[in-house]
Amino acid sequence: MTTPRSWLAPANDSPFGVHNLPYGVFTAGDRPGRRRIGVRVGDFVLDAGAAARAAGEPSVLLDADSLNPLLAAGRPVWTEVRAALTRWLTEESHRDALTPLLLPLAEVELHLPFEVADYVDFYASEHHATNLGRILRPGSEPLTPNWKHLPIGYHGRSGTVVVSGTPVVRPHGQRKAPADAVPSFGPTRRLDIEAEVGFVVGAPSTMGEPVTLDRFREHVFGVCLVNDWSARDIQGWEYVPLGPFLGKSFATSVSPWIVPLDALEHARVAPPARDVEPLPYLDDRGGEPWGLDLALEVRLNGHRISRPPFASMYWTAAQQLTHLTVNGASLRTGDLFASGTVSGPEPDTRGALIELTWNGENPLKLPDGTTRSFLENDDEVTITATAPGPEGTVVGFGEVTGRVVP
Amino acid sequence: MTTPRSWLAPANDSPFGVHNLPYGVFTAGDRPGRRRIGVRVGDFVLDAGAAARAAGEPSVLLDADSLNPLLAAGRPVWTEVRAALTRWLTEESHRDALTPLLLPLAEVELHLPFEVADYVDFYASEHHATNLGRILRPGSEPLTPNWKHLPIGYHGRSGTVVVSGTPVVRPHGQRKAPADAVPSFGPTRRLDIEAEVGFVVGAPSTMGEPVTLDRFREHVFGVCLVNDWSARDIQGWEYVPLGPFLGKSFATSVSPWIVPLDALEHARVAPPARDVEPLPYLDDRGGEPWGLDLALEVRLNGHRISRPPFASMYWTAAQQLTHLTVNGASLRTGDLFASGTVSGPEPDTRGALIELTWNGENPLKLPDGTTRSFLENDDEVTITATAPGPEGTVVGFGEVTGRVVP
Repeated sequence: MTTPRSWLAPANDSPFGVHNLPYGVFTAGDRPGRRRIGVRVGDFVLDAGAAARAAGEPSVLLDADSLNPLLAAGRPVWTEVRAALTRWLTEESHRDALTPLLLPLAEVELHLPFEVADYVDFYASEHHATNLGRILRPGSEPLTPNWKHLPIGYHGRSGTVVVSGTPVVRPHGQRKAPADAVPSFGPTRRLDIEAEVGFVVGAPSTMGEPVTLDRFREHVFGVCLVNDWSARDIQGWEYVPLGPFLGKSFATSVSPWIVPLDALEHARVAPPARDVEPLPYLDDRGGEPWGLDLALEVRLNGHRISRPPFASMYWTAAQQLTHLTVNGASLRTGDLFASGTVSGPEPDTRGALIELTWNGENPLKLPDGTTRSFLENDDEVTITATAPGPEGTVVGFGEVTGRVVP
Repeated sequence: MTTPRSWLAPANDSPFGVHNLPYGVFTAGDRPGRRRIGVRVGDFVLDAGAAARAAGEPSVLLDADSLNPLLAAGRPVWTEVRAALTRWLTEESHRDALTPLLLPLAEVELHLPFEVADYVDFYASEHHATNLGRILRPGSEPLTPNWKHLPIGYHGRSGTVVVSGTPVVRPHGQRKAPADAVPSFGPTRRLDIEAEVGFVVGAPSTMGEPVTLDRFREHVFGVCLVNDWSARDIQGWEYVPLGPFLGKSFATSVSPWIVPLDALEHARVAPPARDVEPLPYLDDRGGEPWGLDLALEVRLNGHRISRPPFASMYWTAAQQLTHLTVNGASLRTGDLFASGTVSGPEPDTRGALIELTWNGENPLKLPDGTTRSFLENDDEVTITATAPGPEGTVVGFGEVTGRVVP
């Protein structure tokens, strides 16, 4: 099937053509304070609720102040709504009615597009986990014995998931270097990023009923970018034995656009070979592969510092979702699970400063002449990503960005 | 001030007299399926919204299907609503109008009383943490170096917090005993309980602004009982390095009644002496003490197996709340944080089977002639608690109960 072309000509050559159509929530000056669902087309945002009414196909799911009702509606409805949006944006007959409903991206404010239910963060990059093991536990096996048997994850704080652009206040907390006798209290000295990919759950599941690998598509609506800000000194002191807590819970930033899973069909790739036989519930050989060829890019104050390849992740999102529910835990609309830091095998493909600077031993030299071991106040970090779309197109994710404030 | 007496005479001698007045959410046969806020008085449930209308003091906060609007309203409103309820139940003039609004407890169904935002579980009993350290890491110091410097905690799954009475499905997962070469998959063989006390956050806080110790009362609405069901074999294999995940996330049960903090004034006690100087933000000497003298009781199939004393907890709920927010993390209405397993110094005051049976080495002998290392299918666990109230009264918490199903 040939990808249809939009009557909005410039959109066709953009990473936000009708092959993408990511969803977000915006406010704009024409109706101040009123949150609306928007769909990004080129450098415009289509007011989706108004478009539905203009097309004579009113949908309460699009006429909402968050994506939650649409998320809850499930896969058949997602397909229907995406088909309708494609029709409206490609058929000439809709052009006149819809043109006034396209707002320039620069004139809207983007918000957190859904209410986050539970937030889970995984740890699925073998390169990242190995680097962290070497840095934090030198002399022992870098990967813990469980790492290749199960996708390690933990629950994060959903109340502090914020949209891209929200300033990140440098957190205070207890820090104790190995040489210190007692901990001290103050602002973190080792503020870091984690470049991750997030998966947004739409359709809920029933408690006691695991979601098997083949049902990934039924439950996951789409994909966004995540920066899981981390205070390494706070985390290092607190995390034994119950895991990260305040070293993470001060802020987790997400990109404002949720790229539909349907837009990523051409990005699907086989995951890397696994050298440990997975237990049957995690065995994805023979089923649909859910590796995804997303090319991430991390910029610090405008300078590119890393290009993490998502296709290198050891565990896929489908395996993570299955593992998450195999004990009977239910899913709710708005659950968000993130991949864990995306780090590739090369030094310049690592997704966190602790790896890029090897725990501060090799500071990054920035083109402006400064160096960084960890983040300084006023530093701005931006993560972007693209994926292959149909017929040579590119699927854009937009960006997740945040500036550190004291 | 003398505690007023209710015109509902039997309530005055009950742990649910007007000195208590816990809030819950119920449905009953007179309006099937309609969730309403109820206040427990003796062995009755007052339909609180109907009572407000009958008293000519309509309150949308009481006329709701969950406690969330009341929780969000904040301390001054909580005080006002509690005063109104006390007035209605003690002044003879309200007797005729309110009597028909008292439903026998046995005739109502109780529900999860609020929507849980973030759920955090702490680890605040020195006896529990010491026992676990001795069992799981024999030969090393039982407490990790951070334990007496900060209240260790982690985020749990709020989507699987369920009300008392919900059956608990024995979770499946990966288990690996130290002697096994590889993990196996199947139902947990080491299903356990954790007897805990939960604190319900009402008034939210602003991101970036820590909630200091003296503001505990502003944010915390009330207290409930928690059973943090745990699959010890799943937890033991998964928890390094990011903490408990599937070993906990299958179910967390809470009691249906939220006892207002105001009802616990007479239960406040000084916490145990700390042998490590707390950092200033956690130092509660000189302020209001928030130790609480709650006497818990754990029954397995009707037989009492433990009497955990909450007054023995090393860290108080006020310290936990302050720690939780010291990095700038915000609170939302409906946040729930639990104390961690309550274990006292004596063997028969331990709040988890792993401690009571010393990891299965000394199985419990039940009066029915059976023994237990961990829970079997059809086992029912019930946790209850009482606290001292004014003038020799007792404050009841009701119970959190759950039966294990295969």
